[in-house]
Amino acid sequence: MPANPQVPEPTIIRLSAYLRALRRLEADEAERASSATIAERAGVSPEQVRKDLSYFGEFGRAGLGYGVPELRRHLARLLRADRELRVVVLGVGRLGAALLGYRGFAERGFRIVGAFDADPEKVGMRLGPHVIMDVQHLPYVVVELGAEIGILALPPEAAQQGTDLLVAAGLRAILSFAPTPITVPAGVTVRHMDMTRELEVLAYYLPE
Amino acid sequence: MPANPQVPEPTIIRLSAYLRALRRLEADEAERASSATIAERAGVSPEQVRKDLSYFGEFGRAGLGYGVPELRRHLARLLRADRELRVVVLGVGRLGAALLGYRGFAERGFRIVGAFDADPEKVGMRLGPHVIMDVQHLPYVVVELGAEIGILALPPEAAQQGTDLLVAAGLRAILSFAPTPITVPAGVTVRHMDMTRELEVLAYYLPE
Repeated sequence: MPANPQVPEPTIIRLSAYLRALRRLEADEAERASSATIAERAGVSPEQVRKDLSYFGEFGRAGLGYGVPELRRHLARLLRADRELRVVVLGVGRLGAALLGYRGFAERGFRIVGAFDADPEKVGMRLGPHVIMDVQHLPYVVVELGAEIGILALPPEAAQQGTDLLVAAGLRAILSFAPTPITVPAGVTVRHMDMTRELEVLAYYLPE
Repeated sequence: MPANPQVPEPTIIRLSAYLRALRRLEADEAERASSATIAERAGVSPEQVRKDLSYFGEFGRAGLGYGVPELRRHLARLLRADRELRVVVLGVGRLGAALLGYRGFAERGFRIVGAFDADPEKVGMRLGPHVIMDVQHLPYVVVELGAEIGILALPPEAAQQGTDLLVAAGLRAILSFAPTPITVPAGVTVRHMDMTRELEVLAYYLPE
């Protein structure tokens, strides 16, 4: 099933919460689960679960709920969580180095297959299992190792140039940590890891 | 105006996009702006803008749009963006060190006033303008420097203990970068910086 452009992005974000809920339910050997059960574990309302899942076909049956293994498999396929996804990191400053060591990625099927920097002082350095490579090898590594996602961990002033390198290397999905807008050609998806946005949401809940 | 618990979280996330759009409009000396103008700059639909803003009162007038400076001021107040918010970082590994140098925070009024670690080897080390302090000084710094938000940058196995320290120090808002659930008492707000979630959303848009 191809990505449905009609599906709102918040729904896609919630799908990953539903997938995690279903994995826990499956680990508990639940065969069926109501929207209320999934909703409680995902921290949303049962109506939201039903509405979100309705974008992808008819899964639930009135009074019977959802089949846990079937729905888990289907969501995993939608989110490509049924296969390993290979990732390259461009920019190995402090943030890039932190990302290379971040354990959350591997746990969910993302494998970093290359770390790149333009700084000759950094090229050849070892960081855990990674050896930092020169950016000129980026297109080769992307093709040879089948990388599909590029993580941009460059400072704002280098972000657009780095983006262009990732796109030229053939990547069609970019996660940017640079706090600046970047431009990509049609067909390339960009998401921004906006660390400040989360602080702004927290701030909303602070007492005045 | 206190935080309205009826407001959905995605609305709050979008408010910060509206605030950025309004700041740009104000810089362009726009006095009034339609929901369509704000929507275009924030990357959402005009209906969404109207619905989100309707939670906070009556701002727009049919045919006249929104008053740019008034709405900007109001959103800034809601998001506490009208004053500096002081932040402490607990855990100065690679990620913590990267956060101490992240320029996006200061640009939006968040100031890191303390960096803490339990490792005696790190305590006293200088990182840019910061000197890493021992965690035992955390409560003192929170009170004396008026810190309101704690950033948790510890590995998963230390995350809960670190959270307890932040709460005991008097913080009521925590942004966790640890890829693990944490528990807080009532009255404390936690947000998780889930770096994997963004990769999962990107994965959805990948070709199969």
